[in-house]
Amino acid sequence: MKSKVHTVKAIVFDTFGTVVDWRGSIIRDLSKWGDTQHITADWAQLADLWRSRYEPQKERVRRGELPWTNIDDLHYEALCALLPELGLSQLSEEQRRHINRVWHRLEAWPDAVAGLTLLKARYILGPLSNGNVALLVNMAKHAGLPWDSIFSAEHFQHYKPHPDTYLGVCRQLYIQPEELMMCAAHNYDLRAAQALGLKTAFIPRPVEYGAAQTTDLVAEGEWDVVASDMQEFARLMNT
Amino acid sequence: MKSKVHTVKAIVFDTFGTVVDWRGSIIRDLSKWGDTQHITADWAQLADLWRSRYEPQKERVRRGELPWTNIDDLHYEALCALLPELGLSQLSEEQRRHINRVWHRLEAWPDAVAGLTLLKARYILGPLSNGNVALLVNMAKHAGLPWDSIFSAEHFQHYKPHPDTYLGVCRQLYIQPEELMMCAAHNYDLRAAQALGLKTAFIPRPVEYGAAQTTDLVAEGEWDVVASDMQEFARLMNT
Repeated sequence: MKSKVHTVKAIVFDTFGTVVDWRGSIIRDLSKWGDTQHITADWAQLADLWRSRYEPQKERVRRGELPWTNIDDLHYEALCALLPELGLSQLSEEQRRHINRVWHRLEAWPDAVAGLTLLKARYILGPLSNGNVALLVNMAKHAGLPWDSIFSAEHFQHYKPHPDTYLGVCRQLYIQPEELMMCAAHNYDLRAAQALGLKTAFIPRPVEYGAAQTTDLVAEGEWDVVASDMQEFARLMNT
Repeated sequence: MKSKVHTVKAIVFDTFGTVVDWRGSIIRDLSKWGDTQHITADWAQLADLWRSRYEPQKERVRRGELPWTNIDDLHYEALCALLPELGLSQLSEEQRRHINRVWHRLEAWPDAVAGLTLLKARYILGPLSNGNVALLVNMAKHAGLPWDSIFSAEHFQHYKPHPDTYLGVCRQLYIQPEELMMCAAHNYDLRAAQALGLKTAFIPRPVEYGAAQTTDLVAEGEWDVVASDMQEFARLMNT
Protein backbone atom coordinates (compact mmCIF):
# COMPACT_ATOMS: atom_id res chain seq x y z
CA MET A 1 0.00 0.00 0.00
CA LYS A 2 2.52 2.55 1.22
CA SER A 3 4.69 2.30 -1.90
CA LYS A 4 1.91 3.72 -4.08
CA VAL A 5 1.27 6.68 -1.83
CA HIS A 6 4.66 7.57 -0.37
CA THR A 7 4.68 10.76 -2.47
CA VAL A 8 1.63 12.19 -0.71
CA LYS A 9 2.13 15.38 1.33
CA ALA A 10 -1.43 16.69 1.48
CA ILE A 11 -4.85 15.07 1.45
CA VAL A 12 -8.02 16.89 0.45
CA PHE A 13 -11.48 15.56 1.14
CA ASP A 14 -14.84 15.74 -0.45
CA THR A 15 -17.08 16.83 2.42
CA PHE A 16 -20.80 16.23 1.66
CA GLY A 17 -21.15 12.47 2.03
CA THR A 18 -17.49 11.66 2.56
CA VAL A 19 -16.80 13.49 5.83
CA VAL A 20 -20.25 14.62 6.93
CA ASP A 21 -23.58 12.82 6.88
CA TRP A 22 -25.61 15.52 5.17
CA ARG A 23 -28.85 13.50 4.89
CA GLY A 24 -28.96 12.23 8.46
CA SER A 25 -27.87 15.61 9.82
CA ILE A 26 -30.55 17.50 7.89
CA ILE A 27 -33.27 15.12 9.06
CA ARG A 28 -32.17 15.28 12.70
CA ASP A 29 -31.58 19.03 12.75
CA LEU A 30 -34.80 20.03 11.03
CA SER A 31 -36.98 17.50 12.88
CA LYS A 32 -35.85 19.01 16.16
CA TRP A 33 -36.24 22.56 14.93
CA GLY A 34 -39.60 21.76 13.31
CA ASP A 35 -40.94 20.66 16.69
CA THR A 36 -40.03 24.03 18.22
CA GLN A 37 -41.76 25.82 15.33
CA HIS A 38 -44.82 23.51 15.25
CA ILE A 39 -43.99 22.56 11.66
CA THR A 40 -44.70 19.01 10.59
CA ALA A 41 -42.97 17.88 7.41
CA ASP A 42 -41.30 14.91 5.79
CA TRP A 43 -37.75 16.14 6.37
CA ALA A 44 -36.21 13.09 4.70
CA GLN A 45 -38.16 13.88 1.56
CA LEU A 46 -37.01 17.48 1.80
CA ALA A 47 -33.38 16.37 2.08
CA ASP A 48 -33.70 14.05 -0.91
CA LEU A 49 -35.54 16.48 -3.17
CA TRP A 50 -33.15 19.26 -2.22
CA ARG A 51 -30.06 17.22 -2.99
CA SER A 52 -31.51 16.00 -6.29
CA ARG A 53 -31.61 19.58 -7.54
CA TYR A 54 -27.95 20.15 -6.75
CA GLU A 55 -26.28 18.40 -9.68
CA PRO A 56 -28.44 20.08 -12.36
CA GLN A 57 -27.81 23.45 -10.67
CA LYS A 58 -24.04 23.01 -10.71
CA GLU A 59 -24.30 21.87 -14.32
CA ARG A 60 -25.92 25.20 -15.22
CA VAL A 61 -22.98 27.02 -13.62
CA ARG A 62 -20.49 24.74 -15.38
CA ARG A 63 -22.14 25.36 -18.76
CA GLY A 64 -22.10 29.11 -18.17
CA GLU A 65 -25.92 29.39 -18.13
CA LEU A 66 -25.56 30.86 -14.66
CA PRO A 67 -22.69 33.15 -13.60
CA TRP A 68 -20.63 31.89 -10.65
CA THR A 69 -23.14 31.25 -7.85
CA ASN A 70 -22.10 29.79 -4.54
CA ILE A 71 -23.71 26.77 -2.91
CA ASP A 72 -25.59 28.72 -0.27
CA ASP A 73 -27.33 30.68 -3.01
CA LEU A 74 -27.97 27.56 -5.10
CA HIS A 75 -29.40 25.85 -2.02
CA TYR A 76 -31.70 28.78 -1.27
CA GLU A 77 -33.03 28.90 -4.81
CA ALA A 78 -33.68 25.15 -4.78
CA LEU A 79 -35.27 25.23 -1.33
CA CYS A 80 -37.75 27.94 -2.27
CA ALA A 81 -38.64 26.04 -5.44
CA LEU A 82 -39.40 22.77 -3.66
CA LEU A 83 -41.24 24.00 -0.55
CA PRO A 84 -44.65 23.99 -2.31
CA GLU A 85 -44.23 20.28 -3.16
CA LEU A 86 -43.82 19.63 0.56
CA GLY A 87 -46.77 21.74 1.64
CA LEU A 88 -44.44 24.30 3.22
CA SER A 89 -45.19 27.39 1.15
CA GLN A 90 -46.15 29.27 4.30
CA LEU A 91 -42.59 29.41 5.71
CA SER A 92 -41.26 32.91 6.31
CA GLU A 93 -38.01 34.19 4.85
CA GLU A 94 -36.42 33.89 8.29
CA GLN A 95 -37.49 30.25 8.53
CA ARG A 96 -36.23 29.55 5.00
CA ARG A 97 -32.87 31.12 5.85
CA HIS A 98 -32.64 28.99 8.98
CA ILE A 99 -33.36 25.83 6.99
CA ASN A 100 -30.84 26.85 4.34
CA ARG A 101 -28.13 27.22 6.97
CA VAL A 102 -28.56 23.58 7.97
CA TRP A 103 -25.71 22.84 5.54
CA HIS A 104 -23.44 24.81 7.90
CA ARG A 105 -24.56 22.59 10.80
CA LEU A 106 -23.89 19.14 9.33
CA GLU A 107 -22.39 16.47 11.55
CA ALA A 108 -19.45 14.21 10.81
CA TRP A 109 -19.77 10.48 10.26
CA PRO A 110 -18.83 8.76 13.55
CA ASP A 111 -15.37 7.68 12.28
CA ALA A 112 -14.41 10.99 10.63
CA VAL A 113 -12.94 13.18 13.37
CA ALA A 114 -10.83 10.40 14.87
CA GLY A 115 -9.48 9.43 11.44
CA LEU A 116 -8.70 13.00 10.41
CA THR A 117 -6.95 13.65 13.72
CA LEU A 118 -4.65 10.67 13.11
CA LEU A 119 -3.89 11.87 9.58
CA LYS A 120 -3.23 15.46 10.64
CA ALA A 121 -0.01 14.54 12.42
CA ARG A 122 1.52 13.52 9.10
CA TYR A 123 -0.28 15.29 6.26
CA ILE A 124 -1.69 18.69 5.37
CA LEU A 125 -5.47 18.26 5.47
CA GLY A 126 -8.30 20.27 4.00
CA PRO A 127 -11.67 19.93 2.41
CA LEU A 128 -11.80 20.31 -1.35
CA SER A 129 -15.47 20.87 -1.57
CA ASN A 130 -18.06 22.57 -3.70
CA GLY A 131 -19.25 24.18 -0.48
CA ASN A 132 -18.38 27.86 -0.09
CA VAL A 133 -15.84 29.14 2.43
CA ALA A 134 -18.34 30.30 5.09
CA LEU A 135 -20.20 26.99 4.91
CA LEU A 136 -17.01 24.95 5.23
CA VAL A 137 -15.60 27.05 8.08
CA ASN A 138 -18.88 26.90 10.01
CA MET A 139 -19.24 23.17 9.30
CA ALA A 140 -15.73 22.54 10.60
CA LYS A 141 -16.43 24.51 13.79
CA HIS A 142 -19.74 22.70 14.30
CA ALA A 143 -18.47 19.19 13.58
CA GLY A 144 -14.96 19.63 15.02
CA LEU A 145 -13.11 18.88 11.77
CA PRO A 146 -9.36 19.51 12.27
CA TRP A 147 -8.51 21.05 8.88
CA ASP A 148 -5.24 22.85 8.25
CA SER A 149 -6.93 25.09 5.74
CA ILE A 150 -10.09 25.31 3.69
CA PHE A 151 -10.03 24.72 -0.07
CA SER A 152 -13.32 25.61 -1.68
CA ALA A 153 -14.71 25.76 -5.19
CA GLU A 154 -15.35 29.39 -4.29
CA HIS A 155 -11.60 30.07 -4.25
CA PHE A 156 -11.27 28.74 -7.78
CA GLN A 157 -14.67 29.93 -9.08
CA HIS A 158 -15.29 26.50 -10.57
CA TYR A 159 -17.13 23.46 -9.29
CA LYS A 160 -15.54 20.04 -9.10
CA PRO A 161 -14.73 18.17 -11.26
CA HIS A 162 -13.24 21.19 -13.05
CA PRO A 163 -9.44 20.71 -13.23
CA ASP A 164 -8.80 24.17 -11.75
CA THR A 165 -10.14 22.96 -8.39
CA TYR A 166 -7.70 20.04 -7.99
CA LEU A 167 -4.77 21.81 -9.64
CA GLY A 168 -5.55 25.00 -7.76
CA VAL A 169 -4.75 23.23 -4.50
CA CYS A 170 -1.43 22.00 -5.96
CA ARG A 171 -0.59 25.52 -7.05
CA GLN A 172 -1.46 27.09 -3.69
CA LEU A 173 0.53 24.50 -1.73
CA TYR A 174 3.47 24.37 -4.23
CA ILE A 175 3.09 20.63 -4.63
CA GLN A 176 2.97 18.32 -7.60
CA PRO A 177 -0.23 16.39 -8.47
CA GLU A 178 1.28 13.11 -7.19
CA GLU A 179 1.88 14.82 -3.83
CA LEU A 180 -1.84 15.51 -3.42
CA MET A 181 -4.42 12.85 -2.63
CA MET A 182 -8.15 13.25 -3.18
CA CYS A 183 -10.33 11.28 -0.77
CA ALA A 184 -13.99 10.86 -1.68
CA ALA A 185 -17.01 8.61 -1.42
CA HIS A 186 -17.80 9.38 -5.07
CA ASN A 187 -16.13 7.74 -8.01
CA TYR A 188 -16.65 10.72 -10.37
CA ASP A 189 -14.54 12.92 -8.12
CA LEU A 190 -11.68 10.41 -8.03
CA ARG A 191 -11.81 9.85 -11.79
CA ALA A 192 -11.28 13.57 -12.36
CA ALA A 193 -8.49 13.75 -9.77
CA GLN A 194 -6.68 10.66 -11.10
CA ALA A 195 -6.80 11.94 -14.67
CA LEU A 196 -4.77 14.96 -13.48
CA GLY A 197 -2.17 12.82 -11.71
CA LEU A 198 -3.46 13.05 -8.14
CA LYS A 199 -3.45 10.05 -5.82
CA THR A 200 -6.91 8.77 -4.91
CA ALA A 201 -8.65 7.21 -1.92
CA PHE A 202 -12.18 5.82 -1.87
CA ILE A 203 -14.28 5.47 1.27
CA PRO A 204 -17.71 4.07 0.42
CA ARG A 205 -20.60 5.65 2.27
CA PRO A 206 -23.35 3.17 1.38
CA VAL A 207 -26.14 4.98 3.22
CA GLU A 208 -25.23 8.55 2.28
CA TYR A 209 -28.47 8.71 0.27
CA GLY A 210 -30.41 6.47 2.66
CA ALA A 211 -30.92 2.71 2.84
CA ALA A 212 -31.96 2.40 -0.81
CA GLN A 213 -28.75 3.89 -2.23
CA THR A 214 -27.61 2.24 -5.49
CA THR A 215 -24.64 4.42 -6.53
CA ASP A 216 -21.01 4.59 -5.36
CA LEU A 217 -21.34 1.39 -3.35
CA VAL A 218 -18.00 0.11 -4.63
CA ALA A 219 -14.77 1.41 -6.12
CA GLU A 220 -15.22 1.75 -9.88
CA GLY A 221 -11.62 2.57 -10.69
CA GLU A 222 -8.07 1.65 -9.77
CA TRP A 223 -7.94 3.93 -6.75
CA ASP A 224 -4.71 3.96 -4.75
CA VAL A 225 -6.45 3.28 -1.46
CA VAL A 226 -9.86 1.84 -0.63
CA ALA A 227 -10.87 1.90 3.04
CA SER A 228 -14.07 1.08 4.86
CA ASP A 229 -13.99 4.25 6.92
CA MET A 230 -11.79 7.22 7.88
CA GLN A 231 -10.05 5.42 10.72
CA GLU A 232 -9.04 2.52 8.48
CA PHE A 233 -7.90 5.05 5.88
CA ALA A 234 -5.72 6.77 8.49
CA ARG A 235 -4.18 3.48 9.57
CA LEU A 236 -3.37 2.58 5.96
CA MET A 237 -1.82 6.00 5.28
CA ASN A 238 0.16 6.16 8.50
CA THR A 239 1.84 2.75 8.26
CA MET B 1 -14.16 45.88 27.36
CA LYS B 2 -16.67 43.26 26.30
CA SER B 3 -19.30 45.83 25.31
CA LYS B 4 -17.10 47.19 22.54
CA VAL B 5 -16.37 43.80 21.05
CA HIS B 6 -19.56 41.77 21.62
CA THR B 7 -20.24 41.86 17.87
CA VAL B 8 -17.07 39.92 17.02
CA LYS B 9 -17.52 36.47 15.45
CA ALA B 10 -14.14 36.00 13.79
CA ILE B 11 -10.63 37.22 14.56
CA VAL B 12 -7.87 37.42 11.97
CA PHE B 13 -4.24 37.88 12.84
CA ASP B 14 -1.24 39.44 11.30
CA THR B 15 1.35 36.65 11.44
CA PHE B 16 4.92 37.98 10.92
CA GLY B 17 5.70 39.67 14.21
CA THR B 18 2.27 39.29 15.81
CA VAL B 19 2.00 35.50 16.04
CA VAL B 20 5.46 34.31 15.04
CA ASP B 21 8.88 35.64 15.97
CA TRP B 22 10.33 35.87 12.46
CA ARG B 23 13.65 37.47 13.47
CA GLY B 24 14.48 35.14 16.34
CA SER B 25 13.34 32.10 14.35
CA ILE B 26 15.45 33.01 11.32
CA ILE B 27 18.54 33.55 13.44
CA ARG B 28 18.09 30.27 15.34
CA ASP B 29 17.16 28.18 12.30
CA LEU B 30 19.92 29.45 10.03
CA SER B 31 22.62 29.43 12.71
CA LYS B 32 21.95 25.75 13.30
CA TRP B 33 21.78 24.97 9.60
CA GLY B 34 24.86 27.09 8.87
CA ASP B 35 26.87 24.93 11.28
CA THR B 36 25.92 21.79 9.36
CA GLN B 37 26.95 23.47 6.09
CA HIS B 38 30.14 25.05 7.50
CA ILE B 39 28.81 28.48 6.63
CA THR B 40 29.66 31.34 8.95
CA ALA B 41 27.52 34.44 8.61
CA ASP B 42 25.87 37.20 10.59
CA TRP B 43 22.37 35.72 10.45
CA ALA B 44 20.88 38.58 12.46
CA GLN B 45 22.18 41.01 9.87
CA LEU B 46 20.74 38.81 7.13
CA ALA B 47 17.33 38.79 8.84
CA ASP B 48 17.36 42.57 9.26
CA LEU B 49 18.54 43.38 5.73
CA TRP B 50 16.09 40.88 4.27
CA ARG B 51 13.12 42.29 6.13
CA SER B 52 14.09 45.88 5.25
CA ARG B 53 13.63 45.07 1.58
CA TYR B 54 10.12 43.75 2.12
CA GLU B 55 8.14 46.97 2.41
CA PRO B 56 9.64 48.57 -0.74
CA GLN B 57 8.98 45.32 -2.62
CA LYS B 58 5.31 45.21 -1.62
CA GLU B 59 5.06 48.87 -2.51
CA ARG B 60 6.18 48.06 -6.06
CA VAL B 61 3.38 45.47 -6.28
CA ARG B 62 0.86 47.90 -4.82
CA ARG B 63 1.84 50.60 -7.32
CA GLY B 64 1.54 48.13 -10.20
CA GLU B 65 5.27 48.33 -11.06
CA LEU B 66 5.37 44.56 -10.49
CA PRO B 67 2.51 42.22 -11.42
CA TRP B 68 1.12 40.16 -8.51
CA THR B 69 4.12 38.37 -6.98
CA ASN B 70 3.82 36.23 -3.89
CA ILE B 71 5.97 36.59 -0.81
CA ASP B 72 8.09 33.52 -1.46
CA ASP B 73 9.13 34.98 -4.79
CA LEU B 74 9.70 38.45 -3.32
CA HIS B 75 11.80 36.88 -0.56
CA TYR B 76 13.90 34.94 -3.05
CA GLU B 77 14.59 38.01 -5.16
CA ALA B 78 15.59 40.02 -2.09
CA LEU B 79 17.73 37.22 -0.69
CA CYS B 80 19.75 36.84 -3.89
CA ALA B 81 20.25 40.59 -4.04
CA LEU B 82 21.62 40.89 -0.51
CA LEU B 83 23.87 37.80 -0.29
CA PRO B 84 26.89 39.62 -1.76
CA GLU B 85 26.68 42.26 1.02
CA LEU B 86 27.00 39.41 3.52
CA GLY B 87 29.89 37.68 1.76
CA LEU B 88 27.62 34.76 0.81
CA SER B 89 27.69 34.97 -2.98
CA GLN B 90 28.98 31.41 -3.16
CA LEU B 91 25.74 29.81 -1.94
CA SER B 92 24.20 27.32 -4.36
CA GLU B 93 20.65 27.55 -5.62
CA GLU B 94 19.69 24.65 -3.35
CA GLN B 95 21.14 26.47 -0.34
CA ARG B 96 19.36 29.68 -1.32
CA ARG B 97 16.05 27.80 -1.64
CA HIS B 98 16.58 26.27 1.79
CA ILE B 99 17.25 29.68 3.33
CA ASN B 100 14.21 31.12 1.55
CA ARG B 101 11.96 28.45 3.04
CA VAL B 102 12.92 29.55 6.55
CA TRP B 103 9.77 31.71 6.44
CA HIS B 104 7.77 28.46 6.35
CA ARG B 105 9.58 27.29 9.50
CA LEU B 106 9.00 30.26 11.79
CA GLU B 107 8.19 29.65 15.44
CA ALA B 108 5.39 31.18 17.48
CA TRP B 109 5.96 33.63 20.30
CA PRO B 110 5.77 31.65 23.57
CA ASP B 111 2.27 32.94 24.43
CA ALA B 112 0.71 32.52 20.97
CA VAL B 113 -0.46 28.90 20.76
CA ALA B 114 -1.99 28.89 24.25
CA GLY B 115 -3.81 32.17 23.56
CA LEU B 116 -5.11 31.10 20.16
CA THR B 117 -6.31 27.79 21.57
CA LEU B 118 -8.37 29.63 24.18
CA LEU B 119 -9.85 31.93 21.53
CA LYS B 120 -10.66 29.09 19.13
CA ALA B 121 -13.42 27.74 21.37
CA ARG B 122 -15.38 30.93 20.83
CA TYR B 123 -14.29 32.59 17.59
CA ILE B 124 -13.40 31.69 14.02
CA LEU B 125 -9.64 32.21 13.78
CA GLY B 126 -7.31 32.65 10.84
CA PRO B 127 -4.24 34.52 9.76
CA LEU B 128 -4.81 37.51 7.51
CA SER B 129 -1.30 37.75 6.28
CA ASN B 130 0.70 38.91 3.32
CA GLY B 131 2.27 35.45 3.38
CA ASN B 132 1.13 33.12 0.61
CA VAL B 133 -1.05 30.07 1.24
CA ALA B 134 1.74 27.45 1.17
CA LEU B 135 3.86 29.52 3.55
CA LEU B 136 0.98 30.02 6.00
CA VAL B 137 -0.10 26.37 5.91
CA ASN B 138 3.45 25.14 6.45
CA MET B 139 4.05 27.72 9.18
CA ALA B 140 0.88 26.61 10.98
CA LYS B 141 1.94 22.95 10.80
CA HIS B 142 5.44 23.80 12.00
CA ALA B 143 4.41 26.12 14.84
CA GLY B 144 1.19 24.33 15.81
CA LEU B 145 -1.11 27.28 15.12
CA PRO B 146 -4.75 26.19 15.49
CA TRP B 147 -6.33 28.15 12.62
CA ASP B 148 -9.82 27.41 11.35
CA SER B 149 -8.82 28.52 7.89
CA ILE B 150 -6.09 30.46 6.12
CA PHE B 151 -6.75 33.93 4.73
CA SER B 152 -3.89 35.14 2.58
CA ALA B 153 -3.16 38.17 0.44
CA GLU B 154 -2.71 35.56 -2.29
CA HIS B 155 -6.45 34.81 -2.18
CA PHE B 156 -7.25 38.45 -2.79
CA GLN B 157 -4.25 39.28 -5.03
CA HIS B 158 -3.57 42.38 -2.98
CA TYR B 159 -1.27 43.08 -0.08
CA LYS B 160 -2.46 44.57 3.19
CA PRO B 161 -3.44 47.30 3.82
CA HIS B 162 -5.51 47.09 0.61
CA PRO B 163 -9.23 47.12 1.57
CA ASP B 164 -9.92 43.96 -0.49
CA THR B 165 -7.93 41.89 1.99
CA TYR B 166 -9.96 42.86 5.09
CA LEU B 167 -13.29 43.03 3.27
CA GLY B 168 -12.50 39.83 1.38
CA VAL B 169 -12.56 37.95 4.68
CA CYS B 170 -15.93 39.49 5.55
CA ARG B 171 -17.30 38.49 2.17
CA GLN B 172 -16.01 34.92 2.39
CA LEU B 173 -17.37 34.43 5.91
CA TYR B 174 -20.66 36.32 5.27
CA ILE B 175 -20.01 38.66 8.16
CA GLN B 176 -20.16 42.39 8.60
CA PRO B 177 -17.01 44.46 9.23
CA GLU B 178 -17.94 44.93 12.90
CA GLU B 179 -18.13 41.15 13.26
CA LEU B 180 -14.47 40.80 12.24
CA MET B 181 -11.55 41.79 14.45
CA MET B 182 -8.03 42.42 13.18
CA CYS B 183 -5.28 41.63 15.69
CA ALA B 184 -1.80 42.95 14.94
CA ALA B 185 1.42 44.21 16.45
CA HIS B 186 1.47 46.97 13.83
CA ASN B 187 -0.51 50.17 14.03
CA TYR B 188 -0.70 50.64 10.22
CA ASP B 189 -2.59 47.38 9.87
CA LEU B 190 -5.13 48.34 12.53
CA ARG B 191 -5.60 51.82 11.09
CA ALA B 192 -6.59 50.31 7.74
CA ALA B 193 -8.88 47.75 9.38
CA GLN B 194 -10.58 50.30 11.61
CA ALA B 195 -11.20 52.66 8.72
CA LEU B 196 -13.28 49.89 7.12
CA GLY B 197 -15.32 49.26 10.27
CA LEU B 198 -13.46 46.25 11.67
CA LYS B 199 -12.78 45.85 15.36
CA THR B 200 -9.12 46.10 16.31
CA ALA B 201 -6.73 44.56 18.83
CA PHE B 202 -3.13 45.59 19.42
CA ILE B 203 -0.51 43.33 20.94
CA PRO B 204 2.85 45.11 21.11
CA ARG B 205 5.86 43.00 20.21
CA PRO B 206 8.64 45.32 21.38
CA VAL B 207 11.52 43.09 20.31
CA GLU B 208 10.12 41.93 16.97
CA TYR B 209 12.93 43.87 15.26
CA GLY B 210 15.45 43.21 18.03
CA ALA B 211 16.34 45.07 21.19
CA ALA B 212 16.76 48.43 19.45
CA GLN B 213 13.22 48.54 18.02
CA THR B 214 11.70 52.04 17.97
CA THR B 215 8.40 51.48 16.11
CA ASP B 216 5.04 50.06 17.19
CA LEU B 217 6.02 50.07 20.85
CA VAL B 218 2.64 51.49 21.85
CA ALA B 219 -0.90 51.76 20.57
CA GLU B 220 -1.15 54.78 18.30
CA GLY B 221 -4.90 54.69 17.82
CA GLU B 222 -8.13 54.05 19.66
CA TRP B 223 -7.96 50.29 19.30
CA ASP B 224 -10.78 48.28 20.84
CA VAL B 225 -8.43 46.01 22.76
CA VAL B 226 -4.81 46.39 23.81
CA ALA B 227 -3.19 43.36 25.44
CA SER B 228 0.34 42.56 26.50
CA ASP B 229 0.31 39.13 24.87
CA MET B 230 -1.97 36.56 23.23
CA GLN B 231 -3.00 34.95 26.49
CA GLU B 232 -4.10 38.24 27.99
CA PHE B 233 -5.91 39.02 24.73
CA ALA B 234 -7.76 35.69 24.98
CA ARG B 235 -8.75 36.36 28.56
CA LEU B 236 -10.10 39.79 27.64
CA MET B 237 -12.07 38.43 24.68
CA ASN B 238 -13.46 35.43 26.52
CA THR B 239 -14.82 37.27 29.56
